[in-house]
This record gives sequence, C-alpha cells and structure tokens, in this order.
Amino acid sequence: MRPLSVNSLNPAILNVQYAVRGELAIKAEEHRNSLKQPNHGLPFNKVISSNIGNPQQKGLDQPPITFTRQVAALMEYPALAELAPNAFPQDVIARAKELYEEIGSIGAYSHSQGVPLIRQSVANFIAERDGYPSDPAHIFLTGGASAGVSLLISMLISSPNSGILIPIPQYPLYTATLAQHHGTAVPYHLDESSDWSTSVAEIEAALEKAKKDGIETKALVIINPGNPTGALLDEATQEKLIHLCEKHSLVLLADEVYQTNLHHPDTHPFTSFKKLVCKLNSPIALVSFHSISKGVSGECGRRGGYFECTNISDEIMALIYKMVSVGLCPPLSGQIGVDTMVRPPKPGDESYALWKQETDTTHKVLAQRTQVMAERLNKLPGVSCVDSPGALYLYPKIDLSDKAIAAAKKAGKEPDAFYALALLDQTGICVVPGSGFGQKQGEFHYRLTCLCPGVEEYVGALEKFHLDFSKKY
Amino acid sequence: MRPLSVNSLNPAILNVQYAVRGELAIKAEEHRNSLKQPNHGLPFNKVISSNIGNPQQKGLDQPPITFTRQVAALMEYPALAELAPNAFPQDVIARAKELYEEIGSIGAYSHSQGVPLIRQSVANFIAERDGYPSDPAHIFLTGGASAGVSLLISMLISSPNSGILIPIPQYPLYTATLAQHHGTAVPYHLDESSDWSTSVAEIEAALEKAKKDGIETKALVIINPGNPTGALLDEATQEKLIHLCEKHSLVLLADEVYQTNLHHPDTHPFTSFKKLVCKLNSPIALVSFHSISKGVSGECGRRGGYFECTNISDEIMALIYKMVSVGLCPPLSGQIGVDTMVRPPKPGDESYALWKQETDTTHKVLAQRTQVMAERLNKLPGVSCVDSPGALYLYPKIDLSDKAIAAAKKAGKEPDAFYALALLDQTGICVVPGSGFGQKQGEFHYRLTCLCPGVEEYVGALEKFHLDFSKKY
Repeated sequence: MRPLSVNSLNPAILNVQYAVRGELAIKAEEHRNSLKQPNHGLPFNKVISSNIGNPQQKGLDQPPITFTRQVAALMEYPALAELAPNAFPQDVIARAKELYEEIGSIGAYSHSQGVPLIRQSVANFIAERDGYPSDPAHIFLTGGASAGVSLLISMLISSPNSGILIPIPQYPLYTATLAQHHGTAVPYHLDESSDWSTSVAEIEAALEKAKKDGIETKALVIINPGNPTGALLDEATQEKLIHLCEKHSLVLLADEVYQTNLHHPDTHPFTSFKKLVCKLNSPIALVSFHSISKGVSGECGRRGGYFECTNISDEIMALIYKMVSVGLCPPLSGQIGVDTMVRPPKPGDESYALWKQETDTTHKVLAQRTQVMAERLNKLPGVSCVDSPGALYLYPKIDLSDKAIAAAKKAGKEPDAFYALALLDQTGICVVPGSGFGQKQGEFHYRLTCLCPGVEEYVGALEKFHLDFSKKY
Repeated sequence: MRPLSVNSLNPAILNVQYAVRGELAIKAEEHRNSLKQPNHGLPFNKVISSNIGNPQQKGLDQPPITFTRQVAALMEYPALAELAPNAFPQDVIARAKELYEEIGSIGAYSHSQGVPLIRQSVANFIAERDGYPSDPAHIFLTGGASAGVSLLISMLISSPNSGILIPIPQYPLYTATLAQHHGTAVPYHLDESSDWSTSVAEIEAALEKAKKDGIETKALVIINPGNPTGALLDEATQEKLIHLCEKHSLVLLADEVYQTNLHHPDTHPFTSFKKLVCKLNSPIALVSFHSISKGVSGECGRRGGYFECTNISDEIMALIYKMVSVGLCPPLSGQIGVDTMVRPPKPGDESYALWKQETDTTHKVLAQRTQVMAERLNKLPGVSCVDSPGALYLYPKIDLSDKAIAAAKKAGKEPDAFYALALLDQTGICVVPGSGFGQKQGEFHYRLTCLCPGVEEYVGALEKFHLDFSKKY
C-alpha cells in the first residue's frame, strides 16, 4: 500500500501560515521542556510567552474575574449553592439560578446559535453600548471570535478569485483562513508614520489593483482596536470606511475583540461600527466580532465570543445557522463567560466592589505597562515603536544591518525571525516576527504582548539583547 | 450598492445538509416557544427532543457524573478547596490540584494539541483498553469529535474528485463536511437484514463504482458502534476492513464515540480499530475519534474529545498541529472533561462508590429502555426495528402507503419527513427522518434516541400516533 503522503493532501493546507503559534512558539515549548532538566545549559530560567495575547497564562498576572468564575463553578456543580452557601455572594447565586433555569445542565448541547437568554444579554449590552437596538436573532454565540471569522470567510469565498481586504500588518487568522478556503487576500497597508492609521485612499488603491488582477473583492476586514498595532480608529475614518463599503458593495468584517482594551479612553475612545452603521442608516452588510478572550475578561481557555449580523438577510442567516448547527453548539463554558462579560455586577450588587477593583486594576496595569514599554523601546538605538492606545501589544520596528540580514539569509530565516529566534535563545522571551503579520518590503518588526509582569526584568532583558545583537551585527 | 445575496456565497454551503438540527428541530423549537403561551392550542404539553443524542438535556434523566463536575468546579474556582473543604472528596481535591499545577488557570489558552498531561492520560487509557502502547504526541484533544472529523476530512479532500467512503445510513456530519469542502461521498450500504452489518464486498463494489466515475477514494469512514444503527462490528469483520484499507491505500477514519454505550457487553463487546491495527501490525493510516459527549459521560455542552493518529507521518502531524493552532486550542472545560472520562475514580478512592453507582445506573437504564422500545416498536404494524446492542438510538423502518407518499409529495416533503413532521405536530416528539441519514430507495426510517424517561408515556404516544397515521393513510 501507499502510505499517506503530504502530496496527497489538500494543497490549500500547505499554504496556511500562522506565526503566532509557529516556529518561535514551538521552539519556546522545547525550551520550556529543557528547563525542567537540572543541567539545561540555557542562559535563562524561564520562558516568557510574549507571542500570544493570553492574559491568564502561567507567569502572567491578569487574574480571572471572581464573579465570572463563581457563576461558572455554580453552573458546573449547582449543589454548591447549598453545600457551601457562604462561599458565594447573593448576586452570583441569583445569576447562576437564572442561567440554570434557562439552560439546565451545561453538559447538554444548547441551541446551535447559543442560549437564547445569553443572546438577549448580548443584545442588551450592544444596545446600551451603542444607543441603537440589537436583535438576539441576529447574534450568534461562538467558540471564540476566531470560529466566527473562519465561518464567515469560508462562506464568502465562492472561488479562488474571491478576495478579502486585509490590513497589513494583520492578525494572521485572516490570511490563514483565506489560504485554507482557497481565497485571495487583498492587502492594504496601515500607515506607521501616523500611528498605524487606516487610509481610505490606500484601500481604494488595493481594490483597484485587485480588480486589475481579476479578483472580485467581497469584504473588508477592519481590526479595531488594531492587532498587532494597537491603533484606534476615529469616527470620521470609520464613517468613510462605511461609505467605501457602500460604494463597492463590500461586507464589513469588524474585528472588535479589543474594544475594552483602551489605555486612554478619554482621548482614544472606541466606537463600534454597528453604532455608526445605525447612525448613518447605512445598508452595508456588517458582521461584528467580539470575544471573552481579551479585555479585562481574558478568558481565552473557555472559548467564548459572538458575532452580530447587521443588514444580513434572513435567508443568509438561515445558512449561517445551518453551518453552525453541523458543529452542534459553542462550548457552554464560553457562553456562560459571554453572559458574565456582557452582564457584569452593577453598583449595589454584592459582587460589584470586587469586580470594580479587579477590572480597574487590570486596565491600569496594562495601560501603565504599555506606556513604559513603548518609552523604553523607543530609547533603544534602531528601534521605534508606536505607543498604542489599545489592545494588548506593541509592534516595534527594528533596523537590521546588512550584516544581520546576510546572517539571517545564511541561516535560511527571514531577518526578523532570525532576530526573534536569537532573542528567544538568549533571553527566553518569545515574540512573533513581523513577517508573520505583514510589513513593507525591507522593514522589520516584531509583536510582543504587554501582559508580562516585572517590566524592569523583562524590558531589561529585551534591551540588553538588542544592544548585544546590534553590536554583533 | 448590491446587497449581499445567497448567489454570491460559496456554492458549497448550499449543498450542506444536516438533518439532526434541520427542519424538524427548528419546528420543535417553535413548538417549545408556543408552549410558553397560555392558549397555545397544541395537542401536547412538552416537546421531546429525540432528534439528538443529548443525554443531559432538560427533561431527560442522564445526570452528570458528580466526580467530573466537582473537579470542573474546583478548576473554575480553586479557592473553593479552602472555602468549602467539606464539599469535595479528597480524590477530587487531589485531581484538581494536579490539573491546576499543570494547566494553571483554565482561562488561559492551552497547547493547541491539548494539555500534555491530559494527552498522557488519554494515552494511558488507550494503552490499558487495547493492550498496545499509545503515544501522547499522536493524540489531539478537540472540541468534540465533530471538530476533529471535520478537520481530517478538510485535509484529505484535495480536489472535487476526492472521495470518502461513508456508510448508509450515516451520521450526517460526514456528508455535511464533505459538501462543505467540495469532496465526494462514496456511499456503501449497511445490511439491515443482518442487524445493520458491514460488508466488505459492498465496500469493494462502492470503490469500483467510484473508480469508474473518476473518483479517487481516499478514506473509509466506519462508525462503530453505529449511528444511527447502533450496530457493533465483530473483530473478524474489523480485520477484513483493515485489510481492505491496506489493499486500496485508504485512510481509516474510525468514529468510536459510542464505544462505552454497550447494552450487552458480554455478547456484543467493543474492540477498537487501534487494537487490531496493532495486533495485525498493519501499516494503514488510522485516525480514531472519541468524545465526552456520549457514553455515561454525556457531557455534550463542554465540547470535548480527542483523536489518535496511528501510522501518520510526523510531517503530516505537524500539518495537523498547524491547522489546529489557527483555532488556538480546544475548550479547557472539554479538556478537563476528557481527563475525568479517561481517568475516573478507582476502587479505594473516596469518589469511587458514587461514580460506580452513577455509571452503572446510566448503563442499565439505557440498555433496558432500548430493549423495551425496540420490542414495542416491533409490535406495531408496518414497523420493524433492529434491537441495537450499542449507541443511543433506534432506527426503525416504517412502511408508508402509497396514499401517505402521495400526501407527502403534495406537501413537498420526503415521505419520512412528512411522517416525522406529523409525529411532531401531534405528539411533540421530535425525531429525524431517515432521509437525513440515508436509506435505500423506497425505504423509510426515522432515528429516535433512547434517552427519554417515561417509556410508557413516550412509546405510548409513538404507538398511538403510528396507528392513527396508518388509519388515515
């Protein structure tokens, strides 16, 4: 018999790239295993996974929100309300009771679109956030935002000539999903010189070029707040983008998973695309994604999120329902997480004070750390870094010498990957090279998260490495 | 602007069919909502969802296993071990501690392949079950078996001429996933006259026909115990199927999610394909799927499962890893559920007695109910039903008169869907018509679960409906 070979597999799979968990992350895992040996010979004592926005991972300091976990524990084991009545505040017990009456056991499949009560909670949250109504029938709960993005892209790609506009730099879920579903990425560049701003003219040019190449562009992806850039759109730009979608009949895929990661909400607030589409009474088809993995929730492991459809026909929503029903339902633990995220304790509730303290601390720590890290990175020779007003990341630009580029070439690596691998091998800090997100030809970046405690030690190691590397190359 | 239209979407989506949550299930949901109104006018007081193997759903009586839920509650809120020490047995506290030390917060992403410790637990379980070694590096934890099946099928389909052998009747996940990924289902029929047995000659004939049609058949799907049939393969047949895969270089996709749902384990035991592939020292590529959703676990809502790869090259496993990494990781609540399923309490552990009692009861109730239901269905005129030795379902054949078929045609329905819709409208019992699973031309079936308590009331309603329907048509 012939053994199963790579050549016999779906060729699209080979084109999928996902750097966030790619070569660097795999090597970091190897180092982590080596560190368990007594004589590991590595020049560091711990691996710091700055490659991924995973706020609750070991060694980081974003704690889970107690309210969320207490409700979840009661849903897992409802008898606890009687076995340990003093372990839970009254509002937690009431919430768990309300959810239990609706859901029953969280070991049962729910409605494929998500528990109706929780979709109603999401709709209430959106209506309160935006000042415009939201319909639970238009909301789909998902296993994290990625699952929804992947589904929508797979539905929109009708041929290899179907294109989707993707920001560069981008979160690589988009290009990975396009590659998997035989679609074409239509890249448009964000402008680093003006804090990674989004330019309508740049998108128009990308559309024009795609058209010349025979690509039918079907959708525009906007990540706001940006990943990896941390940039925030202003409303004037958002309105122009909506008009652009009207002009070119583009579906707007609004990745808004960092909507509550705002470091300066007074000067850099977040406005949802849903709000502006309603305000402008625009007919564009909009799908807005949110997640419990980021923000102050940080509940990545639960796999929870939702998307809201605006101006999408019932016929198409029935198709979306059919597709999600094949996967049965999103994880109930993620759905519970969505409920507690969109319906947190209110002033007067027993849990409110603790919730307020926990969320305030997380916001404050992240904002301070982002600022300090950006300042110190910007002081390094050959490094410049936009001080991002949102999300969880910095995306510094690094100048690499011809000598470094030649050494990278000799090692068979992209220059920024060569830099990031050296950083990992010498400090245990795992970042993602800019080539994984996209950058202009001849430019080099890396993305690192601002989630790591001990800024002094962490940024100190980054600085020392950069100076050593610059000296060597 | 042009609004988004169905015609502009991926045409493959339109071909996806998933009857388990299709027309019948949607109508059942509508009835459930109507029942909340005071004057609903429906001739029943509750909807019974017999369309889906969802043991813990409201109104059914399979309780969660206490051990699983206690461990999960402690993982959600580790402080409970101190806040409510008397609420948890010592082995639960020890298990949660062990898992917490490995995982940290369940709000963090895990390794994309699943938590290493839990994969080791799975490997130990497989090795003990089969008497052959299992390597945790070859195991991928998933969000239920469906996620793994879908991934593998998407990787195997390299062109629209790629085919996969699918049993008829089948669980419609297979045809749905093939349709989504532009592949071709190569159907082979199970033999109802010999308890839904699987015939190698039938598969050979299907392969031959596919070859004539220009289809390159790449894999063979076997569902054992069967869904919807409940049939169990004997080892002699399994060995023949392995040789068939050798002869035709087929990947064997072994859906073994019902492996512990055995009603007569002494006369009808389960043997894994992994065991026989090891025993025969066969080189075939095998992917075996398991889940926490079925069996005595019944934890559908957690979304947990795994697949094990046998005779799959490291290069291909690296591709599988890459693909799962784009989806980040399976839900941690599902992973915890896998750990407690494959590593239940042992004799001597504080939780053992309760665990034994709970699992024994679930096995016993399901076996008895299946037998009673099969007996009573077989007594009805025009109904015949194989008394299945495994899984959660019965798949009775129903004779429909020409008059009934004509009435169905007039209503624009498949005859068995017409029957099932009438059943739903008159009794509130939701089943899935055989046309959703596949059946021979001119034959009609439906699938119903054996999970519903109150056999007398439930089967009584089925009987009365059938007799009324037969009288009318």
